[in-house]
Amino acid sequence: MEGPDAKGLIFNVTSVLYKNECNIFKQDEYVSPNGWFYMRTEFESNNGYEPEKVLQDLRKVIPNEEIKFKLHQQKKKDIVLLCTKEHHCLSEILIRYAFEELNANVLAVVSNYNSLQPFVGKFGIPFHYISAEDKSREEHEEAVLKTLDIYKPEFLVLAKYMRILSPAFVSNYSNRIINIHHSFLPAFIGANPYKQAYERGVKIIGATAHFVNDNLDEGPIIAQDTKEVDHRYSAQDMARDGRDVEKMVLIKALKLVLDDRVFIFGNRTVIL
Amino acid sequence: MEGPDAKGLIFNVTSVLYKNECNIFKQDEYVSPNGWFYMRTEFESNNGYEPEKVLQDLRKVIPNEEIKFKLHQQKKKDIVLLCTKEHHCLSEILIRYAFEELNANVLAVVSNYNSLQPFVGKFGIPFHYISAEDKSREEHEEAVLKTLDIYKPEFLVLAKYMRILSPAFVSNYSNRIINIHHSFLPAFIGANPYKQAYERGVKIIGATAHFVNDNLDEGPIIAQDTKEVDHRYSAQDMARDGRDVEKMVLIKALKLVLDDRVFIFGNRTVIL
Amino acid sequence: MEGPDAKGLIFNVTSVLYKNECNIFKQDEYVSPNGWFYMRTEFESNNGYEPEKVLQDLRKVIPNEEIKFKLHQQKKKDIVLLCTKEHHCLSEILIRYAFEELNANVLAVVSNYNSLQPFVGKFGIPFHYISAEDKSREEHEEAVLKTLDIYKPEFLVLAKYMRILSPAFVSNYSNRIINIHHSFLPAFIGANPYKQAYERGVKIIGATAHFVNDNLDEGPIIAQDTKEVDHRYSAQDMARDGRDVEKMVLIKALKLVLDDRVFIFGNRTVIL
Amino acid sequence: MEGPDAKGLIFNVTSVLYKNECNIFKQDEYVSPNGWFYMRTEFESNNGYEPEKVLQDLRKVIPNEEIKFKLHQQKKKDIVLLCTKEHHCLSEILIRYAFEELNANVLAVVSNYNSLQPFVGKFGIPFHYISAEDKSREEHEEAVLKTLDIYKPEFLVLAKYMRILSPAFVSNYSNRIINIHHSFLPAFIGANPYKQAYERGVKIIGATAHFVNDNLDEGPIIAQDTKEVDHRYSAQDMARDGRDVEKMVLIKALKLVLDDRVFIFGNRTVIL
Repeated sequence: MEGPDAKGLIFNVTSVLYKNECNIFKQDEYVSPNGWFYMRTEFESNNGYEPEKVLQDLRKVIPNEEIKFKLHQQKKKDIVLLCTKEHHCLSEILIRYAFEELNANVLAVVSNYNSLQPFVGKFGIPFHYISAEDKSREEHEEAVLKTLDIYKPEFLVLAKYMRILSPAFVSNYSNRIINIHHSFLPAFIGANPYKQAYERGVKIIGATAHFVNDNLDEGPIIAQDTKEVDHRYSAQDMARDGRDVEKMVLIKALKLVLDDRVFIFGNRTVIL
Repeated sequence: MEGPDAKGLIFNVTSVLYKNECNIFKQDEYVSPNGWFYMRTEFESNNGYEPEKVLQDLRKVIPNEEIKFKLHQQKKKDIVLLCTKEHHCLSEILIRYAFEELNANVLAVVSNYNSLQPFVGKFGIPFHYISAEDKSREEHEEAVLKTLDIYKPEFLVLAKYMRILSPAFVSNYSNRIINIHHSFLPAFIGANPYKQAYERGVKIIGATAHFVNDNLDEGPIIAQDTKEVDHRYSAQDMARDGRDVEKMVLIKALKLVLDDRVFIFGNRTVIL
Repeated sequence: MEGPDAKGLIFNVTSVLYKNECNIFKQDEYVSPNGWFYMRTEFESNNGYEPEKVLQDLRKVIPNEEIKFKLHQQKKKDIVLLCTKEHHCLSEILIRYAFEELNANVLAVVSNYNSLQPFVGKFGIPFHYISAEDKSREEHEEAVLKTLDIYKPEFLVLAKYMRILSPAFVSNYSNRIINIHHSFLPAFIGANPYKQAYERGVKIIGATAHFVNDNLDEGPIIAQDTKEVDHRYSAQDMARDGRDVEKMVLIKALKLVLDDRVFIFGNRTVIL
Repeated sequence: MEGPDAKGLIFNVTSVLYKNECNIFKQDEYVSPNGWFYMRTEFESNNGYEPEKVLQDLRKVIPNEEIKFKLHQQKKKDIVLLCTKEHHCLSEILIRYAFEELNANVLAVVSNYNSLQPFVGKFGIPFHYISAEDKSREEHEEAVLKTLDIYKPEFLVLAKYMRILSPAFVSNYSNRIINIHHSFLPAFIGANPYKQAYERGVKIIGATAHFVNDNLDEGPIIAQDTKEVDHRYSAQDMARDGRDVEKMVLIKALKLVLDDRVFIFGNRTVIL
């Protein structure tokens, strides 16, 4: 749930759950500096509970419509992966999907190149090769959107998809596109971050998983991690070692999103 | 608060606070696998509140005496530091104390050597040099206890105090002695952990802050951290770099304790 | 090269390379406290060089036979993977092999269970299922050795192979078996390290890649890494997150070995 | 030594040392992509050696004047610290200096505020309070330079000196001023990096120690480190925890510089 902070919110929610014979086993809340309240409650019920009734009871004691409730029942989310030529993020997700370690159904893979098609084929997942050649950006994005419409995924994962999405495209999946950027944002926004990092002579590289919004590399950050490098690293060496960071950061962010643990708060994320 | 888990604990506590016009701004709870419930609630009141009344109200709605409540009002805790010859943990604490960054009053320093006396003197803190020479362990500990009795500290911090405390001594400060051990426990229990680490050829060293109980290096762990090393590190090099880890881990643990964030659960800690 | 330290070793080696028109681009050396000298030199030659002649020239200027030279020409090493039921280390290696990121030929996978057979099949690698049921340890190991004899691998990688190897088995691949142990050795030697870690209440877990010798979990350590946990982690949670550490540590160690960067020095490793 | 790469450099240097009966115990070299060669050699001599003769012999076998040699004999370097109001970097250096853990003589502290004067006084180090009020930047810098001229330090350490130095000032201590910047550069250049980091919603903060050149926060980076944060961190919380990173990164960089391990290569550093 989230909304403007008010007295008694925790009390009212726990009260409703108590009366519906639900037992809370994990609860976390956060109030932002500007007074926005976020709470995530995990509960269980021995006898079963009626989600509709719980939501109605909550609305009764907390009538303010600005406060939004969401009731997630643990089920897998439908996702589609977009990639280009690099495999490392894609394969990390596919392997975990194949061994049922992700709370997701990977419905399809879409790529502007066909080089990863044989690999994706091993996992029995549809691969859609939509070349960007001889197409305007609009045409290409339209073709991608059309393909996505077949699957109606809840989330898109840009697993090293090396094309910039237009605001028009993004608006179709507002706050539902997860990207991995190969730098420690906001350092090295834009193209070739490892080349930029090499030239700046940094001693640490990183990766950032974030939601995509209209401004390139400016969306809410979900997870980041870093790795030490030294003067011996060429830009290529940084890219090679960076790939390990990228895939682990993307998986971390994806898991948080799939477990309904990420709230978006302006340009930031609250993770409960 | 802590005690056996039961339905409605969160609801009952938040309800009492709500009725006493206290606003919760941070709350965290944990239920152990064997059904023990821990909760820490930070709240504030605009109009002031009566601690006694809150505690009475809580007992009224949660009559089970096994469930314990503690109400901490933010105030500095009295501590005494014990050290031997190494300065790094001691100086880290004294500096932070001098600049009022710790939620503590450092009442005194006790040492079995006098080498750090001039340094401690700079901070205007009493230094008690109690040599262990020509004394039995019992005699030495008795002398230390006697000195501690002057100050009646809430916590003792062993800032690289290189003597093993007897169970008799420890029983005077049960769960109130914080030690820093210079290894990543439970690796390298006992003396000369860096020498042991060197001989084993580890690639990472560490430090562990823990409460002291009757078994050497076996008390509940509060905080740990690690640092990479390589084959070039001699045992002395490991000790040198390890000191940086030690002092930062001890400070981290000390802050958690001083902020009432550490619960002891058997031989483990719950940090809320 | 390695051997007893002596004056002029670096001078003599660089002199021979210079005269053979080889250009050094990376060189690293280490002298152990007991006077053993290790050096690894990467060089290239524009006109080609004769390895035999370089080795002869080296022996001429450094006649001490205790000093050993090895000349590696960059080529892929043959390896066989052993696994049980867990896939994460195996799949990390297979993916990197499939995309030619490893300096190795994965000749085969051997397992005491058949559950990973379909997955390995996707990569076109022979899978040998050798059940340990109804066999003595000797019989089982004999069957495994017989299978390995088909491939004559340079290195065996125990990718979560959950059986203890006898000294007799190990002696066939002395210093050529790489294991991943799911703890930060020497903490939690033996079975169920995550259960042990949970019960001890550690705040950091880890993984250790090491060469296998006759004493369980006591061989020379190649690489280690750690990850923070807290009181909320059950032993199962630690195992789940630990798997990410395990696979990355094993890959790190494997790459070092495949690139001829690991020297064994008693029970320790020197990595140049 | 450093200079344009050429065949036989390592051979020639080791040859000269060998003939001067010096024994190399540590050597590290690096060749930059544009063909610049860096080498650092640690050696010792039982019988003593003549530095002048070694340098002459080196020049004889390597006559190219573009190649520069430096022969450092382990001795303490003179440094002066500049600070403003925050103590943490200053006190970390002073403590280590007081316990003789730094390869440096701290000759004086210069500050544009007098609040740290009593603390510095405890260590018996001259404190120069040079207020910037009622002075132009030129006047203030002139006053600081005049004070520095008393001490003629080899290096200046900006231990959270919160004023921007003019190119004119910097030119007096070219490549000899070490600064600690409270962000993971090049993210958050300029003022208030923690506020910037908070607003961007990063999940990791950092600190950067670098040499100062004419462009603000653009000089060659010596060391960096990072620390995880989450949505609960206010900008103030980030600043508080960031201070721990800052002081440890500054100490790390300072030690590298004091041990002659840092080469400047364009806008980057090579650390051997």
